[in-house]
Amino acid sequence: MNFNILKQVFPLLILVLTISCSERAVTDVLVHNLAEFDKAVLEAEPGTEIVLANGVWKDVQLKFIGEGAKDKPITIKAETPGKVFIEGVSNLEISGNYLVVKGLFFRNGHTPTGNVIAFRTSEEKVANHSRVTNCVILDYNQLQRDKDDLWVQFYGTHNTMDHCYLAGKTNGGPTVRVDLKGNQSIRNYHQIVNNHFGPRPRKGGARGETIQLGSSFTSMSPSNTTIANNLFEECNGEVEIISSKTNFNEIRNNVFYKSEGSVVTRHGNYAVIDGNYFIGDGVNKNFGGIRLVNTGHWVINNYFYNIIGENFRSPLAVMNGIPKSPLNRYNQVTDVVVAYNTYVDCKSPWQFGVGTNIAQADVLPKSEIRSARALRTEVANNIIYNKIGDKNVIIEHDKADGVKFKNNIINNQGVDFGDTTRIKATEFELTKVGEYIYLPELSREFDIYQGFGFDKITNDLFGNSREDKNSIGATVQGEFKDPNILDKTKYGADWFSNSIEAQEPSVIAVTSAKGELEEKIAAAKAGDIISLGPGQYNVSKSIIINKTITIQSKENEKAEIIFTGADNTPVFELNPYGILHIKNVSLTGNGKQQAFSNLKENMSNHFGLTVSGCDINNFNYVLKAYKQTFAEEITFKNTSISDCENGIELSEETNDKGDYNVEYLTIDNCSFTNVNQNVIDYYRGGYDESTIGGNLLVTNSTFTNCGSKEKNRILLNHRGIVNVNINKNTFTDNMVELVALLWGAKNNVASDNKISNSGEIKVEENLKLKLMY
Amino acid sequence: MNFNILKQVFPLLILVLTISCSERAVTDVLVHNLAEFDKAVLEAEPGTEIVLANGVWKDVQLKFIGEGAKDKPITIKAETPGKVFIEGVSNLEISGNYLVVKGLFFRNGHTPTGNVIAFRTSEEKVANHSRVTNCVILDYNQLQRDKDDLWVQFYGTHNTMDHCYLAGKTNGGPTVRVDLKGNQSIRNYHQIVNNHFGPRPRKGGARGETIQLGSSFTSMSPSNTTIANNLFEECNGEVEIISSKTNFNEIRNNVFYKSEGSVVTRHGNYAVIDGNYFIGDGVNKNFGGIRLVNTGHWVINNYFYNIIGENFRSPLAVMNGIPKSPLNRYNQVTDVVVAYNTYVDCKSPWQFGVGTNIAQADVLPKSEIRSARALRTEVANNIIYNKIGDKNVIIEHDKADGVKFKNNIINNQGVDFGDTTRIKATEFELTKVGEYIYLPELSREFDIYQGFGFDKITNDLFGNSREDKNSIGATVQGEFKDPNILDKTKYGADWFSNSIEAQEPSVIAVTSAKGELEEKIAAAKAGDIISLGPGQYNVSKSIIINKTITIQSKENEKAEIIFTGADNTPVFELNPYGILHIKNVSLTGNGKQQAFSNLKENMSNHFGLTVSGCDINNFNYVLKAYKQTFAEEITFKNTSISDCENGIELSEETNDKGDYNVEYLTIDNCSFTNVNQNVIDYYRGGYDESTIGGNLLVTNSTFTNCGSKEKNRILLNHRGIVNVNINKNTFTDNMVELVALLWGAKNNVASDNKISNSGEIKVEENLKLKLMY
Repeated sequence: MNFNILKQVFPLLILVLTISCSERAVTDVLVHNLAEFDKAVLEAEPGTEIVLANGVWKDVQLKFIGEGAKDKPITIKAETPGKVFIEGVSNLEISGNYLVVKGLFFRNGHTPTGNVIAFRTSEEKVANHSRVTNCVILDYNQLQRDKDDLWVQFYGTHNTMDHCYLAGKTNGGPTVRVDLKGNQSIRNYHQIVNNHFGPRPRKGGARGETIQLGSSFTSMSPSNTTIANNLFEECNGEVEIISSKTNFNEIRNNVFYKSEGSVVTRHGNYAVIDGNYFIGDGVNKNFGGIRLVNTGHWVINNYFYNIIGENFRSPLAVMNGIPKSPLNRYNQVTDVVVAYNTYVDCKSPWQFGVGTNIAQADVLPKSEIRSARALRTEVANNIIYNKIGDKNVIIEHDKADGVKFKNNIINNQGVDFGDTTRIKATEFELTKVGEYIYLPELSREFDIYQGFGFDKITNDLFGNSREDKNSIGATVQGEFKDPNILDKTKYGADWFSNSIEAQEPSVIAVTSAKGELEEKIAAAKAGDIISLGPGQYNVSKSIIINKTITIQSKENEKAEIIFTGADNTPVFELNPYGILHIKNVSLTGNGKQQAFSNLKENMSNHFGLTVSGCDINNFNYVLKAYKQTFAEEITFKNTSISDCENGIELSEETNDKGDYNVEYLTIDNCSFTNVNQNVIDYYRGGYDESTIGGNLLVTNSTFTNCGSKEKNRILLNHRGIVNVNINKNTFTDNMVELVALLWGAKNNVASDNKISNSGEIKVEENLKLKLMY
Repeated sequence: MNFNILKQVFPLLILVLTISCSERAVTDVLVHNLAEFDKAVLEAEPGTEIVLANGVWKDVQLKFIGEGAKDKPITIKAETPGKVFIEGVSNLEISGNYLVVKGLFFRNGHTPTGNVIAFRTSEEKVANHSRVTNCVILDYNQLQRDKDDLWVQFYGTHNTMDHCYLAGKTNGGPTVRVDLKGNQSIRNYHQIVNNHFGPRPRKGGARGETIQLGSSFTSMSPSNTTIANNLFEECNGEVEIISSKTNFNEIRNNVFYKSEGSVVTRHGNYAVIDGNYFIGDGVNKNFGGIRLVNTGHWVINNYFYNIIGENFRSPLAVMNGIPKSPLNRYNQVTDVVVAYNTYVDCKSPWQFGVGTNIAQADVLPKSEIRSARALRTEVANNIIYNKIGDKNVIIEHDKADGVKFKNNIINNQGVDFGDTTRIKATEFELTKVGEYIYLPELSREFDIYQGFGFDKITNDLFGNSREDKNSIGATVQGEFKDPNILDKTKYGADWFSNSIEAQEPSVIAVTSAKGELEEKIAAAKAGDIISLGPGQYNVSKSIIINKTITIQSKENEKAEIIFTGADNTPVFELNPYGILHIKNVSLTGNGKQQAFSNLKENMSNHFGLTVSGCDINNFNYVLKAYKQTFAEEITFKNTSISDCENGIELSEETNDKGDYNVEYLTIDNCSFTNVNQNVIDYYRGGYDESTIGGNLLVTNSTFTNCGSKEKNRILLNHRGIVNVNINKNTFTDNMVELVALLWGAKNNVASDNKISNSGEIKVEENLKLKLMY
């Protein structure tokens, strides 16, 4: 047979196609305002490029409706990428086919609707085959934390978000959500690729996911969304970074870098989680891995480095399900495959029966009891390396008796981990391939388990073929090339970088001359240090803190601030972005004011507070945090607090939806004397097993003559807070019944405390809380 | 470009492929017994055909394990199709690839395992690309009704059952089930095609489906099973004929002929129900249509004729879901499309909110309340024709406010049906195309609604293209050809027919000579009539009835049977298949025996009883039915019953799993006098909304001096029976508190009864029953 005949024919075909493609007639239309934009959109034809003039577009609701063609999309783009600023109360909605949006910068504002960018313009009119690329959304937050929104909401099918940078979302709602309600949005094959998801601060409660794919109500629908080649950097919003809630989603080759959460198959089934990097630091236990619920997932070729998260946040967390679970709760794990993964210096990387709560049968309804263990699940061909031996490589919160372990090996430095069959101890070393990337070099071939469908795992972490020279672990053996996972030019908008050069702070000397302190704080740059000379500073009006600032004086020459402001006003008013470090300062009030507080309204971004070496006396409140305000960290250290009506008040999140006012509250080496009530009042309400904060540490401190007016007769109030540690404190003559009431079922502990004439510390195993759903 | 070049190349390719296919070397191996069979299987190579010698293969467990090839399967086949009888305690298991089974006849026995034919030989070893064809399974029932099994159980992928005939299953368990536990059995693409599912008798309770696709536990898995071109004839096992419980199944071009059930999307989502025929008779309300639960189904191109089923059994039944339903209950209907269907002479064909039970909130837990109405559902382009106008074309058990109706038309003969927007009244006529097939002839074109995805409905009921000349309704307009839906040569095994020629019964005269009656009954053929001359028949031992038989004498010269058998034995012992019609006979006992009963054990098939014009007196029981026995119909007519300790006793199904002993119990124009207890005792236990029997009719009868020893003080006991009608009876001097306790929420009614000195008839709206699951 003469195959040359075919060779002659095909180039002709290709030529014909090429000619037809290059026939595109591009029309550029420059628009300067919304009216011009709307007109251009109305008149656009396939191939039209609508160019938004550089500058600030304020309070604009852009509706981009059009019918492009496959080879001739309709495009809206920035005149110069990154120089078109969408600000104020603005948003963008897209519907039609083959539409492209390029180079826009959303900042200094928030959306008037439920989303900043939506791939639809009405319930019926969705976008298909459309793309948002090279855009940035930065700190585009609602004024209230409880006002939920989404930054990008997908509808329709075959839409793409690529090379975008999204960071700084503080209010409720996932950063990106794929919506599947309606047949027009299923089997969507959306692509979320090559984006940079920059820092998302801790939200303090639920609804802080970075990406959510569907919801429990559409958890039976095929989504087929791909999330690939993205960088997730410090995505700390909540316990789930990616929450997959629909079927057949693929999460491939992403980098999860120091992100306090996990990839979770929360609802839906048959997810593929393939070739991702999970990078921790061996210190922070909040960096998680992959948490599995439901059926048929394949977790393959993933690399875990220095992930020491526990339980929900362990590198591999296989949950218990609820038998015959309600739609919005936990289905049993069945038919899952975990194969060809590599774990380097992770702690107890495999945890099964996560979330078991059989012991709580007394306080929870039957439909909440997670007792259904994983079934028909295979864990095979994985490699674990521990620089320091781990005594508990596998943790079974409930038995892993439905899990088959095959051909897994470990170098545990000879340390016994109580298991010889499920993982085989072996000697091998690592080789450093790049930053954070250490790969096993195996001196011999290890048998490979061939489970059902394993023949379809054709490539490794780096995309190398497994066909000819397969190996257990995330990579086949051979020459390793540095994958440069943190090369940020590969992700996000090409005109934007979130790398900040370290800047030397200015030290600004301030005297006690009237008004000088307030003036210089207002003029300082973020990060600057206000250095107070000794003496008395009379402050008559609240000082606004709206950036990171340090105020300090010398330890042995403390500046004294005398506050003469109005009742119920604070010395320091913490505004959005306001992070105050105050050191070696004495603060004195008249008994009716607050030392620190934040805004009652419009707290559109987080605040923070560190108080060290200070004396605080004669205030109504030491700290008063209002509802819908949040600090990642609040610390009091080496500080004495005396003669105040109230202490540290962080208890306004009474919606009982899992929210709270601060992630970490630390009291270290402080003294509290004559604080009448709310000495510490820190509250989280609502039962939700997946909200696993906040964190209270009270240590090395003394509490004397406090709590005399406390209504509930408990000195330290932390109801609903999941992690509490009260240790090495001295409690003397506090007129209460209890020093603290610990939640036994959670991580609440007390030790080495001296208690005299102050009641006791009591443990309640199962706290009764309102169900959140 | 010269396309002739391509034309020259392709035939060469095809030639090459053809040569390679025809290289198959077939080896025939004739085997006569299990040892030879096992050896042949062990030695088989691709292409081998193992021939089972004609004759009876008794008590054989055939394991067919092999590796055939795509073009060279390994086959086991009957020497002559239909002449190899698998009998006794036997079964067949298949695993491997490319295996074929042909021409076997399973009868006179039952399986020792859970299935007669299984597409696996162990939990791990399943079959793929394998086929069972031209086989028959007939009455291959377990000895006990409660011993569940399956006749064909699919595992693995790409298996086929075609041209088989299956009929007569009476015990628990679907006739065919597709199993999806394990990744080796998902996305299975099994084909169940061109089969004839012959009569499956009513089972009396749940677990009597003809085909079940998965289970609630695998309801999240993709199945992709096709059920196409099958005939379902009198598949009356239970309320679901096909129970689709997994995702992406396709049910196409089947004929549901006088089958008492529905096609139900019980669990799982995205079923396609396309081009099926539902044929009723306009009389039997048990013939159903399509009942929908869950998400994303497409119901298109279907034809419904004379289906008058109500509620669960209506032609289109859209159910209410349970909000956030547990896995094994009812998810909400969302994103469903019902388009291009034709309904001819159906009653209230569209019913929504089916199964709503908001009113039962008092007696049911919240997780049982079906209050979630259908959402985002479209009903469009359908045609309804009613020869006699229907006042309630749409029934809303709960509001259909989440349903969009578009471009539906009806000829309702001008009768107002209270709706002008959802269906448009129009004039058009039908044309007869074939038996049961009447299609609308439209005199003009009607607008067609184009919903999302409607462009993918490319063909009509007959497979004609919709592209050029589309029309609303199941068929495009044009020349119609008779689809010959009941041409049985298209379905089932080619060597088997279930068509039975009507046979004239023999009338066999019997005298009262000793032993003659028993002898002649034993010798009679099924269907024969035993004609008793007048006089006294002394019967000393139970007469066995194991076929359909009629025993009668003349109305005015009643034969008298005097029974002198042992205590607790019946005059007539109803064995499997025993259906007795007894007419104008007097039966007298000694007070300690039974007039009728069935077997205590091994009642492997149903019985039946019609008693008319008889006198029955002096028995312990008139009828005593034992556990695990079932009659489709029991009727007492024009009969007097007197001086008995117990009456009609059908109450042994106390497992509370929805089972009961008889489907229809009818008492018409009878008199009951001095029956001390259990006058009528008919029981169904267990709450299950989808078990919608049994049926009790008590009419035109008198009850006098009965119930004096009744422990629960109720005369007519029918606890848990769904359909009860007590009318035009006279109750006099019965020493009870209640004549009957009706279940108000179900179809229990009483009217025109005369009650004196007999207590009352009471209604309890919501009966408290044990939950079944």
